[in-house]
Amino acid sequence: MSEIKNDLLLKALKGDEVSRPPVWMMRQAGRYLPDFMKLKARHSFFERVETPELATEITVMPVHQVGVDAAILFSDILVIPQALGVEVQMVPGKGPYLPTPIRTMEQVQAIPDVDVKDRLHYVYEAIDLTKASLANEVPLIGFAGSPWTILCYMVEGQGSKTFDKAKAFCYEQPEAAHLLLTKITHATIAYLKEKAAHGCNVLQLFDSWGGLLSPLDYETFSLHYIREMVDALHKTTPVIVFGKGCWFALEEMAKMPVSALGVDWTITPQMAREFTGFNVTLQGNFDPARLLSPIPDIQRLVKQMVDDFGKYKYIANLGHGILPNIPVDHAKAFVEAVKSYG
Amino acid sequence: MSEIKNDLLLKALKGDEVSRPPVWMMRQAGRYLPDFMKLKARHSFFERVETPELATEITVMPVHQVGVDAAILFSDILVIPQALGVEVQMVPGKGPYLPTPIRTMEQVQAIPDVDVKDRLHYVYEAIDLTKASLANEVPLIGFAGSPWTILCYMVEGQGSKTFDKAKAFCYEQPEAAHLLLTKITHATIAYLKEKAAHGCNVLQLFDSWGGLLSPLDYETFSLHYIREMVDALHKTTPVIVFGKGCWFALEEMAKMPVSALGVDWTITPQMAREFTGFNVTLQGNFDPARLLSPIPDIQRLVKQMVDDFGKYKYIANLGHGILPNIPVDHAKAFVEAVKSYG
Repeated sequence: MSEIKNDLLLKALKGDEVSRPPVWMMRQAGRYLPDFMKLKARHSFFERVETPELATEITVMPVHQVGVDAAILFSDILVIPQALGVEVQMVPGKGPYLPTPIRTMEQVQAIPDVDVKDRLHYVYEAIDLTKASLANEVPLIGFAGSPWTILCYMVEGQGSKTFDKAKAFCYEQPEAAHLLLTKITHATIAYLKEKAAHGCNVLQLFDSWGGLLSPLDYETFSLHYIREMVDALHKTTPVIVFGKGCWFALEEMAKMPVSALGVDWTITPQMAREFTGFNVTLQGNFDPARLLSPIPDIQRLVKQMVDDFGKYKYIANLGHGILPNIPVDHAKAFVEAVKSYG
Repeated sequence: MSEIKNDLLLKALKGDEVSRPPVWMMRQAGRYLPDFMKLKARHSFFERVETPELATEITVMPVHQVGVDAAILFSDILVIPQALGVEVQMVPGKGPYLPTPIRTMEQVQAIPDVDVKDRLHYVYEAIDLTKASLANEVPLIGFAGSPWTILCYMVEGQGSKTFDKAKAFCYEQPEAAHLLLTKITHATIAYLKEKAAHGCNVLQLFDSWGGLLSPLDYETFSLHYIREMVDALHKTTPVIVFGKGCWFALEEMAKMPVSALGVDWTITPQMAREFTGFNVTLQGNFDPARLLSPIPDIQRLVKQMVDDFGKYKYIANLGHGILPNIPVDHAKAFVEAVKSYG
């Protein structure tokens, strides 16, 4: 692999000293960027995800327009259910809709062993194109959903505040749930290995719905499978695990061979450091809605955040995805405030 | 006040020894009970809330049918915006809708000083009737939303996963937000004092959306006002504060003169005890979706929960409201498992 020119993120993931913390933003590729909205007006969600040229353009956009220290491949966590043969629709203004949700052991057993390499070829093509476009300026992050979070959508069939159907499935039919989680885990490991082979420098797992589970159920239905994935991936590629609302599992998560853990904004940097034993690189945790604050407030709060996490073993980021209604100059102010730290 | 025959809840709130922990369930009055569904089919939401005879019937129902150790008055947290002159509609299947949300300082300033005693007379009439119907069998809990949670609905205008408009209002117009929070706080204090005067033995504050804020913003926009309410109420009536997702504030909450703190299911009993200094009565925290488990699982998990919280200074409850799709015999199994503890 050629040398990455801006290696702040890679250094922070190794725990090396840095001149300043690296900064990127979850969901930075899309949503709030006017040039993205123009593409969105012309191309459907799946056109954007499945056309390597479009995915590349969207991935590279925030690097040039907002100045982040890493690119994250534009894609969606629900390509995995699609690869497993479960139909996923994206309803504008409503989010994902899976017309045939998984509710029985028979349905789980019927999910075929698939060649993820073949099924998701457009993702790897997008990585190849993006790597060429980035020309080693910044590292490229590839991502996937955690098995639990993917199960949530496959069983619930759509977004939800509470994913009660997904939880009921796990509590009423634990054997079926574990078989489904195993199938998702294996497909996702193969998928992420291929992403790394095509040049993703870092892999991030999003456990967006882990925070809906009790600590005991989290261990059983989510962390167990995240651990399997991290074990399979970390030797070749640095892995970041972000569990939204999963503060209660940080101590256990810190025992995995991860390169960093993401945290959301409902935990103080001090508590996050304490729970993770002061020894793991942490990523986060600016409240995305706080980017609506006046720019001087953003600058003040970013400085406080970096002060509290510390300059080393730290990746500045939001505590969840950037919101669609954030003014671009506020997003830039966030990035600039990190860059001018110290 | 006459003696309450089943005084387990009152004892637990005082920290006295008990033969077993008291048990009740948030949202126990309604939803999953077939007799409630019959009433619901005949009477609209506001008919049920505003007709004292109906509110009484619904309030007493779970005491007789499920055997809980306390009644909680059937009502809604949004009676406060209504009393303040803000229209609230309840859209079946969708939840609350406020057609004229608060978005400007002018709107906040225009909210009149109202006589909550006069405006919410139907609530006090329902308390009088309920007290007569309960005949001192069990204590009666009255409740209200926290000022922050009420602001969420008044500004957002409807339910939301993230209440971004409400948060943006606080971050962009903090002076208007604080004036609104002050107005809500004063109205709610007057409302709860009147509820206690009519015979509510316990008051519970629900901060349903506190968990959307960072610890710093939680102190500024929520806990500050909860503290004002607790200070105004605790001398005459025991107060329980439940902040969903507010684990990060438990240490600060425990410094208030509350009689108990509620916790949701994403915290272990051990951590909740640790954060609150092992000295406050705690209430919770069974995952409502876990009531969908087979009954033997419910029995096992309830025993574990009571073991972990301990028999004293503990009120068995769910970690949030009971779900509409819980079979009644599962709700009964939960209550019975606590009753047969030890």
